Amino acid sequence: MKVGIVGATGYGGLELIRFLHNHKAVERIDLFTSSEEGVIFSSKFGHLVHIADTPLQKIDYGALEKFDVVFTSTPSGVTSELLPPLVGKGPKLIDLSGDFRLKDPASYEAWYGKKAAPLEVIQQSVYGLTEWNAEHVQQASLIANPGCYPTAVLLSLLPLLKEQLIDPSFLVIDAKSGISGAGNKPSQTTHFSEANESFSIYKTNTHQHIPEIEQAISMFAGVETTISFNTHLVPMSRGILSTSYAPVMPGVTEKRLVSCLQNTYEKHPFVRIVTDANSLGTNHVKGSNYCDILVKVDSRTNRATIVGVIDNLVKGAAGQAIQNMNVQFDLPQTTGLDVVPFFI
Amino acid sequence: MKVGIVGATGYGGLELIRFLHNHKAVERIDLFTSSEEGVIFSSKFGHLVHIADTPLQKIDYGALEKFDVVFTSTPSGVTSELLPPLVGKGPKLIDLSGDFRLKDPASYEAWYGKKAAPLEVIQQSVYGLTEWNAEHVQQASLIANPGCYPTAVLLSLLPLLKEQLIDPSFLVIDAKSGISGAGNKPSQTTHFSEANESFSIYKTNTHQHIPEIEQAISMFAGVETTISFNTHLVPMSRGILSTSYAPVMPGVTEKRLVSCLQNTYEKHPFVRIVTDANSLGTNHVKGSNYCDILVKVDSRTNRATIVGVIDNLVKGAAGQAIQNMNVQFDLPQTTGLDVVPFFI
Amino acid sequence: MKVGIVGATGYGGLELIRFLHNHKAVERIDLFTSSEEGVIFSSKFGHLVHIADTPLQKIDYGALEKFDVVFTSTPSGVTSELLPPLVGKGPKLIDLSGDFRLKDPASYEAWYGKKAAPLEVIQQSVYGLTEWNAEHVQQASLIANPGCYPTAVLLSLLPLLKEQLIDPSFLVIDAKSGISGAGNKPSQTTHFSEANESFSIYKTNTHQHIPEIEQAISMFAGVETTISFNTHLVPMSRGILSTSYAPVMPGVTEKRLVSCLQNTYEKHPFVRIVTDANSLGTNHVKGSNYCDILVKVDSRTNRATIVGVIDNLVKGAAGQAIQNMNVQFDLPQTTGLDVVPFFI
Amino acid sequence: MKVGIVGATGYGGLELIRFLHNHKAVERIDLFTSSEEGVIFSSKFGHLVHIADTPLQKIDYGALEKFDVVFTSTPSGVTSELLPPLVGKGPKLIDLSGDFRLKDPASYEAWYGKKAAPLEVIQQSVYGLTEWNAEHVQQASLIANPGCYPTAVLLSLLPLLKEQLIDPSFLVIDAKSGISGAGNKPSQTTHFSEANESFSIYKTNTHQHIPEIEQAISMFAGVETTISFNTHLVPMSRGILSTSYAPVMPGVTEKRLVSCLQNTYEKHPFVRIVTDANSLGTNHVKGSNYCDILVKVDSRTNRATIVGVIDNLVKGAAGQAIQNMNVQFDLPQTTGLDVVPFFI
Repeated sequence: MKVGIVGATGYGGLELIRFLHNHKAVERIDLFTSSEEGVIFSSKFGHLVHIADTPLQKIDYGALEKFDVVFTSTPSGVTSELLPPLVGKGPKLIDLSGDFRLKDPASYEAWYGKKAAPLEVIQQSVYGLTEWNAEHVQQASLIANPGCYPTAVLLSLLPLLKEQLIDPSFLVIDAKSGISGAGNKPSQTTHFSEANESFSIYKTNTHQHIPEIEQAISMFAGVETTISFNTHLVPMSRGILSTSYAPVMPGVTEKRLVSCLQNTYEKHPFVRIVTDANSLGTNHVKGSNYCDILVKVDSRTNRATIVGVIDNLVKGAAGQAIQNMNVQFDLPQTTGLDVVPFFI
Repeated sequence: MKVGIVGATGYGGLELIRFLHNHKAVERIDLFTSSEEGVIFSSKFGHLVHIADTPLQKIDYGALEKFDVVFTSTPSGVTSELLPPLVGKGPKLIDLSGDFRLKDPASYEAWYGKKAAPLEVIQQSVYGLTEWNAEHVQQASLIANPGCYPTAVLLSLLPLLKEQLIDPSFLVIDAKSGISGAGNKPSQTTHFSEANESFSIYKTNTHQHIPEIEQAISMFAGVETTISFNTHLVPMSRGILSTSYAPVMPGVTEKRLVSCLQNTYEKHPFVRIVTDANSLGTNHVKGSNYCDILVKVDSRTNRATIVGVIDNLVKGAAGQAIQNMNVQFDLPQTTGLDVVPFFI
Repeated sequence: MKVGIVGATGYGGLELIRFLHNHKAVERIDLFTSSEEGVIFSSKFGHLVHIADTPLQKIDYGALEKFDVVFTSTPSGVTSELLPPLVGKGPKLIDLSGDFRLKDPASYEAWYGKKAAPLEVIQQSVYGLTEWNAEHVQQASLIANPGCYPTAVLLSLLPLLKEQLIDPSFLVIDAKSGISGAGNKPSQTTHFSEANESFSIYKTNTHQHIPEIEQAISMFAGVETTISFNTHLVPMSRGILSTSYAPVMPGVTEKRLVSCLQNTYEKHPFVRIVTDANSLGTNHVKGSNYCDILVKVDSRTNRATIVGVIDNLVKGAAGQAIQNMNVQFDLPQTTGLDVVPFFI
Repeated sequence: MKVGIVGATGYGGLELIRFLHNHKAVERIDLFTSSEEGVIFSSKFGHLVHIADTPLQKIDYGALEKFDVVFTSTPSGVTSELLPPLVGKGPKLIDLSGDFRLKDPASYEAWYGKKAAPLEVIQQSVYGLTEWNAEHVQQASLIANPGCYPTAVLLSLLPLLKEQLIDPSFLVIDAKSGISGAGNKPSQTTHFSEANESFSIYKTNTHQHIPEIEQAISMFAGVETTISFNTHLVPMSRGILSTSYAPVMPGVTEKRLVSCLQNTYEKHPFVRIVTDANSLGTNHVKGSNYCDILVKVDSRTNRATIVGVIDNLVKGAAGQAIQNMNVQFDLPQTTGLDVVPFFI
């Protein structure tokens, strides 16, 4: 399998390289960028010396068409223009940006503040939440790989919403992310001395992943809801943990919620249902494609606390993208992704 | 003023020393401990060489009675026995533990799993949330200094609850703390290699600060409510940020919520109402007695997001304790506490 | 290949599991411990759910004899007693502790303060610095896997010392390590709130890796020398960087030093000679078995600055142990170790 | 006392504000900047709300002349042009940049790659290493405040060099700094995700503090020497620790070295001689103006290991600058600086 990566210099791109390097079906990886043509990749990223000593290539449709898969890991607003001419041309397209996730172009333009991709292309794209959409993923020409927050939130909430075990009318989702989620471009917010040893909230009530989550809840659980959703910056590099709160439906027990999750994900290798909160934390999934989920019912309030934990760069980006690729090429989902979390 | 500190070797004790060293009304600080009698304090804590080169003393009622103020900063279950004989005997008693905060001994025993202090002593104690209880604090013999989480939560929510601007029937409080909140005793959870670079939830729905928060909401806002409350561990040393969610009452605007907070705290030097979320973060209060508060209304859900930020060891412990001491001795509240936050 | 790990609960043990899980020649891993017999391993280490759901086993010679390889990753003073009866009995023994590294029992007892292993067993053991001792490693029954600091120091200095390009008579080695090097047992020194945001020196001039380094310099470079060696604690989890200083021999240029390193390691997949200091840092080797080396000559002093960088838990422990196993079983050295460094 | 700060938005400037806010002799602080005129300072730095709600002012000689003291905390190459017209005009000038530290303009131009200040102004300037130069500091119109690394290095080495207890002919200084030393301007090197959890060397053998250290050793110890000096980046915000190595002169004992340090600094409130290495670490000086010093002799090599520890932003910048101001105005050196280190 020949793979092209557009936007290789971003953290999503680097993680793609990290996993594809050990993917037995991948024989060649080419790296593309909008600038720095000809630069030897490992001269920019010392950790890749001996691993990716190839030159960055100019983005070129002729070249891209020849790959089996093209991953695009670019800022929003890039692939909406770049990818449409490639759809259906040969390579499977897996887009890690937000450009094809929202089915409603108006919604995209409102939340992202950028021009949406052409409607017909958006309609062809398939939302790549692998555990919930593998059938469509397999057939898709263009996959909209889910956002990092939505992945943690949806995997933990969808089963309970779909089986109507929790009440969608008061759903509060409080999410926290490591700083790599902000990408590789330096800014005051991500400047070490100011980000280190500080915890903060950002984009209060206005994060662009809100419509993505609501759309997927509608799509996969058949429930229309308006969520409270906030995001926080944790002084660490990797990891997302989302804590969600929802009233439990009458008569539903904690045990029932746990079984619902266990049954849903029984055959899914990357989702683990955790029952001991002490075994839950972002370090338990670090570097891996796992999503760990915990649910507890607070008997005082009769509300459920549902926690989803992922590595934002893996299950929340590159790992899930490769999982989707595996589905498309009829490989076991774990191919190239069967790694042990880092822990320390 | 002569000050005694019992439990000087804990982080609360160390912070008391840090601030009292620069408190102009304090002429002498004596340090007490249940063990290590005679040990020179600075031989245990190198940062205090030249500052606290005095020996630790054995806890002794005769000695303690002679102080103007005695701060106790001990694990729960200690002062419930230690302090009752001292109440009304001379020194003002300011207890940083949870032993006198809950008015209902049964509740204390249920949440703390320890024997409660004698009821009559509990009844005499005054809850030291300075901004809301200064009048009683001034007269108190025994102050129950608030918990770290309750301080951030209550200061941010009480004005809005008291004026019935938000709906107490669905109040979700998602709190995050730096690891110093776990105290100075090593454990697997606080072992650097396992706590570092990980974000986790703990004591899901069962933190002992829950009844303290509910009791204070009842006491100061006149509202009975059952809260959803969870706590998380952030890989940093200091700081608490609480994110609360509640429906806004009909017709109430964000502007109204902001004015309510501004009016409430207008004359309170340690509470700052922040309107730009970019200026909010635990580093903005680090090392200081400030509590920063932000409120935003999410027009999609008509719910308010209310954020409270403190340094858990200062406003959440030693700083507020000294603030209470200042009130008791008719000193300006800022005496010894007028320091600039660390930021970096 | 059947593998046993004694001391599986330590960080060395956990890293062995992380790599052996993806080692194609390993069909089975059994975990042994001196306590906690019967405990399901993943119930202690949540990150290993679905990966190591097997019970810890009691250490038993009968059982251990049946493995192809037994790794021991225990505190010093354990394997000196545990392993001698197993030597030559069947399994290849790879000891990650310091118990068999020093050829002189008196030296071991002086630096470690413990009883040395029997002399005849020490003499049979082979020092497993793979790049320098593969031939002996291949034949060995018992491998003394090198210490973390010695690995970084020796790989970077041996070529230059052996070819007499630098002067061994004034060799200063200033080493820095992440905190995982201190192991998994909580202590005040490794308590998050006290280790975080602090840099410190420890075991000044008395680290037990000093005689190991001097012995290996003698063994592999044929040079007797007495080194200055100090170790520091860096507030991060993983990584070692050693900065060494030595006078350059007359007429020797920086170019010559670089070629010496490049030539020495030309065919060694895990050593990378770095010429741009900006590409050097512990994050460039994190999670991998690489050792990155930089050498610069200071023309003002005519001294060389030689920097070695490794992940202390991988090349400095579990990774090198598996590399040695690969050599013993005639597998390519990279088997199971060909992973991309984490970087972020 | 009226104080002006030029370059208030840098970390040096922020620390000046933090300490001057509590300096009893300072009645007013004005903030100047080369851009952002009129911007309310606390709108940029949320931690300073209620503390520095004043507008940034345009740099203006007429205004600057009226202050009692002007601190300049700007990048190198700014004050070499800005300050000369102000020298002798009224305010005491305390420059935190490197522009007036090197007495030889050619050396400045070689190491800084910028045009040097006029020679006659350089000659008037006084190097503000307070403990060693208080007499000249008191008379100076223009103070060149020492660099952060030189402060830690010089305070720890000068007594031993001056009394000829260590051999200057082989002096290796290995220094490590927290990332705030890189200033407040975002870059790839200081981007959280890349600086976090990594330890690296930078400016190998070429740091511009080298000539400053050598010049001061000549000036205060009367010794001409060429040092080995390297600098490393520690993933923490604040703190410098320098580890120096030098042969001990014949017959000199560790005890003698310790007494030399103790005697030298007996009356200096900010220097502490530490004899237990466990009490040494950057957290023991964090936020304070202390310099902690440890010396140990390695009897195997007969070399001394000398460690100096400071907070780079305090004793290494703003704190020492205020200490110099205190000397100039005949105030106790501790005025406004008598704070307890943070520790956690």
